[in-house]
Amino acid sequence: LRACEDFSCFFTVLVSPDLLAVLPSHPKVLFHPCTEVITMQDHPLHSIRMKKNASMVRGLNLLKDEKVEAFLSCGNTGALIAGSALFLPLKPGVERPALLARLLKKNGDLFVLDVGGNLEVNVEQIEQNALMGIDHLLSLGKKQISMGLLNIGSESLKGTLLVRESYQRLFDRFKGDQEIDFVGNIEGRDPFDSDLDLLVTDGFTGNVFLKTAEGATSMLIQALEEKGIHLPLAIKHSFDYRSFGGALVCGVEGIVIKCHGNATAQHVYRSIEALCQ
Amino acid sequence: LRACEDFSCFFTVLVSPDLLAVLPSHPKVLFHPCTEVITMQDHPLHSIRMKKNASMVRGLNLLKDEKVEAFLSCGNTGALIAGSALFLPLKPGVERPALLARLLKKNGDLFVLDVGGNLEVNVEQIEQNALMGIDHLLSLGKKQISMGLLNIGSESLKGTLLVRESYQRLFDRFKGDQEIDFVGNIEGRDPFDSDLDLLVTDGFTGNVFLKTAEGATSMLIQALEEKGIHLPLAIKHSFDYRSFGGALVCGVEGIVIKCHGNATAQHVYRSIEALCQ
Repeated sequence: LRACEDFSCFFTVLVSPDLLAVLPSHPKVLFHPCTEVITMQDHPLHSIRMKKNASMVRGLNLLKDEKVEAFLSCGNTGALIAGSALFLPLKPGVERPALLARLLKKNGDLFVLDVGGNLEVNVEQIEQNALMGIDHLLSLGKKQISMGLLNIGSESLKGTLLVRESYQRLFDRFKGDQEIDFVGNIEGRDPFDSDLDLLVTDGFTGNVFLKTAEGATSMLIQALEEKGIHLPLAIKHSFDYRSFGGALVCGVEGIVIKCHGNATAQHVYRSIEALCQ
Repeated sequence: LRACEDFSCFFTVLVSPDLLAVLPSHPKVLFHPCTEVITMQDHPLHSIRMKKNASMVRGLNLLKDEKVEAFLSCGNTGALIAGSALFLPLKPGVERPALLARLLKKNGDLFVLDVGGNLEVNVEQIEQNALMGIDHLLSLGKKQISMGLLNIGSESLKGTLLVRESYQRLFDRFKGDQEIDFVGNIEGRDPFDSDLDLLVTDGFTGNVFLKTAEGATSMLIQALEEKGIHLPLAIKHSFDYRSFGGALVCGVEGIVIKCHGNATAQHVYRSIEALCQ
């Protein structure tokens, strides 16, 4: 409820009737009871179609009907992507929404997509991921975008067939582009110390990339603290994934945010903060 | 040449004739001139078959003929895997060798395979990766092995079709096993702060995992140093991937080590150190 105090916006919260009974009321919060639950084990599209009283379905419909301005969920990622595609208008040229995450790098932000929306994709979807990422960065006011493709080596012939074909597709499409500098293949080690703005990949690899970066830095911070080396709060904070907001569902009209399934109150707060600013 | 002073073994070094002309001689080093080069752009199998005078082909043949006890290469990974499979005897049950890397985690070591040997694999190859990793850990004297499958969520239905099927395969195979505890799906964030010994994955995802962990911790160390926070050398050292040896080619008879293409002298030294101990 800290968000209620700090931001001027109003909230609509979708909860189970049990939880509703114990939650305190707040003048800026409207509670909606939801009698169904989409679990992490549920089949995404099936559950979205059948469980009309789940918070995810209700929330996406409130967004579609413009009853809310944004929808935030910590639920099943596949169901959220499927539901976004089903209930919200897709942006022109988009077949499937994807998840965009913001990550810290040495100088500035790195945007990565897809970080878990679509796991088995083709070259067209990788290209769409690139276009959705570019679209988002342009909407943030960025004029020059440095974009790379996540791969296991920098040479154009490295990687799986999908990645090799995607390299060629992006190379051909952005050759000589004034705004977009496609710098080619990027290894997992490189983006953190680079001028890259946008890292394009499939949802499986992107998810592994994002979570590995989080896990590796958390471990180092923990190891240092155990040695009695206390880091400045600003650094700890900036390397803590919970201090970043959730991932944005790209490619649909309407703001949909996916928070980690094990999100803390702080993580959800940051996501709301990012929306309200 | 530091390795020549520090270790009691002898070295056979394969170099181009140009380089041979400028390198100092050493009583413990036998130089072999190699007149061909397998580049990073070369097709792996094709180049291994055609370039009989490349250092990789010569080195693997010296190993096969027991003229050397181990072979270390910083060259084209695909070619090294293809060459190892072609020239060296495969261990029983192995179809394709894979690359095993050792990584630091909170308590002890984490072994990951495959980190780049085979990029497009099937369920059988994932199972073989598991078996090769287990074989290596048992050979190190480990009695109990905690093993996980790299995925984007912990639930059994998460991930691509390949990963879901691999989960089922490993689950069925190791159910009730006394030595191997298959703990299921592991997210990129989790292995660093866990008791996991062995992380099984395909070569593409494993390579991204390994390099991302390296890049993310390097960035944090650099950020701290720029703030004037100097870390104890032991910590810096233990988080620097160059202080680990190269990756081991698993599944063949004979010791083949793959170092990073951009390996430093220190990285190669560590790999030799690991071999000589």
